[in-house]
Amino acid sequence: MNQELSNLIQSIQPVDQAAMLRARERQAQLTKPAGALGDLEELSIRLAGIFGSEKPHPQGVAVIVAAGDHGVAQDGVSAYPPEVTPMMVMNFLSDTPGGAGGAAVNAIARSVGASVYVMDAGVNAELPAHPRLHRHALRRGTRNLRTEAAMTRQETETLILAGAALARQALQDGADILIPGEMGIGNTTPAAAVTARLLALDPARVTGRGTGVDDAKLTHKVQVVREALGRTPANDPLEVLAEFGGYELAAMLGVMLQAAASGKAIILDGFVEGSAALVGVALNPALKDYLLPAGECAEIGHAAQLQALGLRPMFHLGLRLGEGTGGVLAAPLVLAAAATLREMQTFAEAGVPGA
Amino acid sequence: MNQELSNLIQSIQPVDQAAMLRARERQAQLTKPAGALGDLEELSIRLAGIFGSEKPHPQGVAVIVAAGDHGVAQDGVSAYPPEVTPMMVMNFLSDTPGGAGGAAVNAIARSVGASVYVMDAGVNAELPAHPRLHRHALRRGTRNLRTEAAMTRQETETLILAGAALARQALQDGADILIPGEMGIGNTTPAAAVTARLLALDPARVTGRGTGVDDAKLTHKVQVVREALGRTPANDPLEVLAEFGGYELAAMLGVMLQAAASGKAIILDGFVEGSAALVGVALNPALKDYLLPAGECAEIGHAAQLQALGLRPMFHLGLRLGEGTGGVLAAPLVLAAAATLREMQTFAEAGVPGA
Repeated sequence: MNQELSNLIQSIQPVDQAAMLRARERQAQLTKPAGALGDLEELSIRLAGIFGSEKPHPQGVAVIVAAGDHGVAQDGVSAYPPEVTPMMVMNFLSDTPGGAGGAAVNAIARSVGASVYVMDAGVNAELPAHPRLHRHALRRGTRNLRTEAAMTRQETETLILAGAALARQALQDGADILIPGEMGIGNTTPAAAVTARLLALDPARVTGRGTGVDDAKLTHKVQVVREALGRTPANDPLEVLAEFGGYELAAMLGVMLQAAASGKAIILDGFVEGSAALVGVALNPALKDYLLPAGECAEIGHAAQLQALGLRPMFHLGLRLGEGTGGVLAAPLVLAAAATLREMQTFAEAGVPGA
Repeated sequence: MNQELSNLIQSIQPVDQAAMLRARERQAQLTKPAGALGDLEELSIRLAGIFGSEKPHPQGVAVIVAAGDHGVAQDGVSAYPPEVTPMMVMNFLSDTPGGAGGAAVNAIARSVGASVYVMDAGVNAELPAHPRLHRHALRRGTRNLRTEAAMTRQETETLILAGAALARQALQDGADILIPGEMGIGNTTPAAAVTARLLALDPARVTGRGTGVDDAKLTHKVQVVREALGRTPANDPLEVLAEFGGYELAAMLGVMLQAAASGKAIILDGFVEGSAALVGVALNPALKDYLLPAGECAEIGHAAQLQALGLRPMFHLGLRLGEGTGGVLAAPLVLAAAATLREMQTFAEAGVPGA
């Protein structure tokens, strides 16, 4: 393994248990009935661990949307043609009356005050240079994972490091919370293959409708995943990613590894994002504690990922869009959880008798 | 009925169906798979109806926290003593290192950029004058609803109008979305009685643990509600509110009526808030379309309210705090839903082929 990547993976430290203990004690003293903030309390305690303070103060939020195409798309696994990927990248970057970018992730990010970074991780088109487009494509889309390894091992490692580099830029720009997001027609197929292999689940249990394929296409998609898995017994995490994954999955993995290595929080939403997280946790289990939940997406197989990652979703809105949209929607909840721990008074401070 | 109140109730107009139709058509053309934004899509369409535009642009968010005490608290229906109510009001108003107010609603509102208005609707204490305290108390807490009418009809109407007046101030200050919130030790008991009568449900189905009473106290609390309901067959909405309600419930009802009458949105969260909404919808069913969901609170009986009001909760965080906290947490989701409808490009605008 590339030495820089090995160092990145090994540099992720466990979260601060002492700060979590202090945060737990503080939550019990805040001016509210014990437990009345529900799941926000555990979330706030996790933030205390990540940021090393019982009064955590995460501020900037950034979503990094990595885009890539997939050789397997030629097998008809998506409801949309692969040409949509580059067009959506241009949509992420377009100037619209509402601001920069006309896709869902742009609108939602502007609404919650998050920054958007867009990466060409391997789109099947020659994208024009654009000041907001981070170009890291090595190839115009992966090879067909059904018949051969989607990426070489070296491509995989290069894209992970590219994701990590863009994450460092976002952190330098002020982000304390990073959200990996993706765009890539066909990418629920590699995500299903990676998830099936890493969680040792049958393809039928983790292969879903993606953007909305019908029953016949879904049956075919399961068969494609099954053929891919039958092709190789690979189960080393990076091998699994190279064999079955995609460039944007590798880039998102890099984003997560760098965020955790830098002691920052990650909001994880979406099935494709979840498959990259499974690779990361297999590489270093300490990553798990830096992952915060968002919603449960409609894609079958997401629940299995969340269970494996120990994440309990905060909302159930039936989102199945990707782009990191669910993670961006969760950001205000995460910031609010930190605010309760940081800014609420204790019973003693407020002079209020406890229960 | 007071003429001003009658006018307020009658002035609520149905939401704009034509704008909703245009919004629904627009949602279908936005650059995402059909339905991929899940429940946010219906939410955005509702906002189009309320604000009369297929590109709704709600901006300011305000939570109005009404506080009141309850004669029934002397019957031991809460885990906390009634002295907590005025102390929490002072906590809402206190100057803390984090900003104005050290309660959960203050911390969360600051985090999401919402304004907080605090009303003494009838707290059992002489609260000191404070520039941020809106004093509308007629009495230091209601009478004991178990044995007599909690409020007179005139008190009830006066507090509804006081809530409406404070709502008008919040709207003048720039709010487009209002969130009713409350503080009042013992107030899940009046909320349960109001809900049981208006929904014709047995008290055991809608009487819960509030801030956390044990089994014995819960059994007693159900019995208190049962006795109250047995005292009078009142079922006129304002009679029900006067007999079983409370000053802060009346004030919250006024907030909702005014918001709807002014064509603004209401985020409804919490069991006590829900009981006031049931009164409002009984007074004018058109109010219903101005109510937007937040989370599902842990209080038994909230689900029955949501069903009656046609609201599907957006998150399930196990909150049971009140103060309007759940509604404030939902505000960024509501604003983001509007942003998708307003700022996303259509497939045609972005030059992206649809499915």
